[in-house]
Amino acid sequence: MEYYTGAAKKETLEISELRKKARTGGAKAAVRVNGAVHTIRDMGNVAFVILRKREGLLQAVYEEGKAGFPLRDIREAAAVEIEGILEENEKAPGGIEIRIRSVHILSEPADAQMPLAISKWKLDTSLEAKLNYRSISLRNIRERAKFRIQEGLTRAFRDYLYGQGFTEIHTPKIGARGAEGGANIFKLEYFHRPAVLAQSPQFYKQMMVGVFDRVFETAPVFRAEKHNTKRHLNEYTSLDLEMGYIDGFEDIMAMESGYLQYAMELLAKEYAGEIKVLGIGLPRADRIPAVRFSEIKELVAEKYSHKMKNPFDLEPEEEVLIGQYAKEEWDSDFVFVTHYPSKKRPFYAMDDPEDTRYTLSFDLLYKGMEITTGGQRIHDYRALTDKIRARGMTEEGMEQYLNTFKHGMPPHGGLGIGLERLTMKLVGEDNVRETTLFPRDLSRLEP
Amino acid sequence: MEYYTGAAKKETLEISELRKKARTGGAKAAVRVNGAVHTIRDMGNVAFVILRKREGLLQAVYEEGKAGFPLRDIREAAAVEIEGILEENEKAPGGIEIRIRSVHILSEPADAQMPLAISKWKLDTSLEAKLNYRSISLRNIRERAKFRIQEGLTRAFRDYLYGQGFTEIHTPKIGARGAEGGANIFKLEYFHRPAVLAQSPQFYKQMMVGVFDRVFETAPVFRAEKHNTKRHLNEYTSLDLEMGYIDGFEDIMAMESGYLQYAMELLAKEYAGEIKVLGIGLPRADRIPAVRFSEIKELVAEKYSHKMKNPFDLEPEEEVLIGQYAKEEWDSDFVFVTHYPSKKRPFYAMDDPEDTRYTLSFDLLYKGMEITTGGQRIHDYRALTDKIRARGMTEEGMEQYLNTFKHGMPPHGGLGIGLERLTMKLVGEDNVRETTLFPRDLSRLEP
Repeated sequence: MEYYTGAAKKETLEISELRKKARTGGAKAAVRVNGAVHTIRDMGNVAFVILRKREGLLQAVYEEGKAGFPLRDIREAAAVEIEGILEENEKAPGGIEIRIRSVHILSEPADAQMPLAISKWKLDTSLEAKLNYRSISLRNIRERAKFRIQEGLTRAFRDYLYGQGFTEIHTPKIGARGAEGGANIFKLEYFHRPAVLAQSPQFYKQMMVGVFDRVFETAPVFRAEKHNTKRHLNEYTSLDLEMGYIDGFEDIMAMESGYLQYAMELLAKEYAGEIKVLGIGLPRADRIPAVRFSEIKELVAEKYSHKMKNPFDLEPEEEVLIGQYAKEEWDSDFVFVTHYPSKKRPFYAMDDPEDTRYTLSFDLLYKGMEITTGGQRIHDYRALTDKIRARGMTEEGMEQYLNTFKHGMPPHGGLGIGLERLTMKLVGEDNVRETTLFPRDLSRLEP
Repeated sequence: MEYYTGAAKKETLEISELRKKARTGGAKAAVRVNGAVHTIRDMGNVAFVILRKREGLLQAVYEEGKAGFPLRDIREAAAVEIEGILEENEKAPGGIEIRIRSVHILSEPADAQMPLAISKWKLDTSLEAKLNYRSISLRNIRERAKFRIQEGLTRAFRDYLYGQGFTEIHTPKIGARGAEGGANIFKLEYFHRPAVLAQSPQFYKQMMVGVFDRVFETAPVFRAEKHNTKRHLNEYTSLDLEMGYIDGFEDIMAMESGYLQYAMELLAKEYAGEIKVLGIGLPRADRIPAVRFSEIKELVAEKYSHKMKNPFDLEPEEEVLIGQYAKEEWDSDFVFVTHYPSKKRPFYAMDDPEDTRYTLSFDLLYKGMEITTGGQRIHDYRALTDKIRARGMTEEGMEQYLNTFKHGMPPHGGLGIGLERLTMKLVGEDNVRETTLFPRDLSRLEP
């Protein structure tokens, strides 16, 4: 028997530790580092062995005669542990390098011939190839950085909401019926009973507002939509929140703008390396304009001589124009579009008492693409059941949801953010698959 | 057009704000609070209106003549906003109360007759009833507190691992094949192709070790197991991690013990209220004993005169005895059981080179129940494909997974923690459904 008392400090150093050591007089010291051999540039008497580590690339220098082994012992794609001397070198990535003294091979590739040239700065291949070799293509530093940014966005969502008194929940993804209804539901057999995959945690998060007042969830949702576009996925990560005791649906937009501010601050602070690798700027989120659906449609129709087809619908091209308008007129990449038509929203959306053709709801557009849908929900039991009847829907299968309202619910509302879309716009990609680790679409079920 | 600039500070106060105000000379001040009317105790000239708020219960006092409205205006289960005078009162929950001056009804229940007596301190009803009325039963303060503890455990997992250089990933839950193989897989149709729900993120997290070195995921997994026990769920939340460049599988156990220490510290600090409500103590996690599978089986067989049926299997009763042994001999609620038999582990588990009948793997038992399975994985491509062949399995459908190893992978390992089980043992429940928001089991698909 032996005891475990916490994570052991490793003798090997990470890049940030090496830099700190070099800055604080530790240059010329003997150090140990491990990593994957990203690439080797053999210059004859000297060779640069570039290690890929979680914090970035690290240059190790092989000098004929000084290292106690032949260069051929090190192969690209091997995992190695190197002992050497830490040196400052302005030309090396991060300003430091390791002069190799000895190497310990941790693991050898069976095939060092990579299917993709991952060590190039920009991975020059098709999206299709990137996705087919996902575990290889993401070894490229720029490809990898996108998903570090994605982590920052998710992390900021949770941390900001913890600070705002929200409770995190985990709701089931297998259920007896879908929240939004409609045909876009994946069906499965659950021990000889019909079941579906959750399109959203909508019903559950509302039910939990009566328990925790404010809740959030960061989890997968499933949509059996037959869209084959650059912005649709059949499985994606939804950042959902729902909050009670709101004064109006404006509270939800205020909360989202607070989240985005917090997220940009966290990214600037903790993900500066990835931002630099990607060469991107962060959008301002300190003030996000909000404009009514019917109003902005007219504004863009006028400004860009766009012919409005349907006053109660918003086409993707119109979203793009709204994004352009917000940028030009209000210097904002983000814009809230409010008061969506009631027909376009689910039954639980609260109609605007001043004009019931519209709802107390919003979308958030980011660079001309919808990344969030949200709004106030009906909290009154009779109003809810009336609306269900008026829409010709059935209460069947919604008993527990409706029961929650029967026994009292505060005024509330919430939103859902598509994480992959938000990431895509932030890192400047134009296909949502670029910012999805393993996308699921009409034709893609692997890897 | 108007601008949103962040979450608006509410005029209504939360319990912690009221307490702080009272402590800092703000007693006798006029305040506004909102909440759900948890219960009303009418004593004649005075009535206690207990509000349920996210931080706990708050006592509001209705005094005949002082409040500008009749008591009957306030109904149980309504959502209200109250204006009143903040007072210190040692007998009130949290030492404060509000003397009501006026009330604003935010929402009325259609039916104030609750199906469950949620305002009792201990909800005295069957598990079945609790689950059938989940959105109501969780309004009970003790029931709710369990899920706040669950939040703390998840939050600690992420925060601890961020600090240890891990990257969070989101892997797909719909796939073409299962990670572990076997029959316990939910099947669905994916656009006219057969698909399955993920039993674990195993393959994906391993593939991502080659990219990020250290990764974690907190997400649902799906097991079509036909067990109907107190410890099995068909959908649960798995806290998964996988880490590269390990010196041995001991690194994984060290990491888990570090997490558990961090989690207990976070719970003690940030969830003290819930711990008090539940009346529980936190287990010590500063040193967790580890003992070999074959050794502990003999130890418990001897100490408790238990007849060992199969030296290569561990029955639930034996797990209970091991838990008892660890408590009695080592004063620990946790115990790592190491070197599980190879036959009991999946193909990717690394066999112990010193005795290949066993693996470099472990389970963590908590109070006699398995809450974690982990270990070192095979990282060598040929060793992996050899083992697949030796087991008579096919490589079909695993091409991308195996391809990752072909092109180099560091030594690595990881673990998966069942969140609901960990919560259950921590809060002292004996059925995992008690610590699952909306459990899915053989018979339960709703709510």
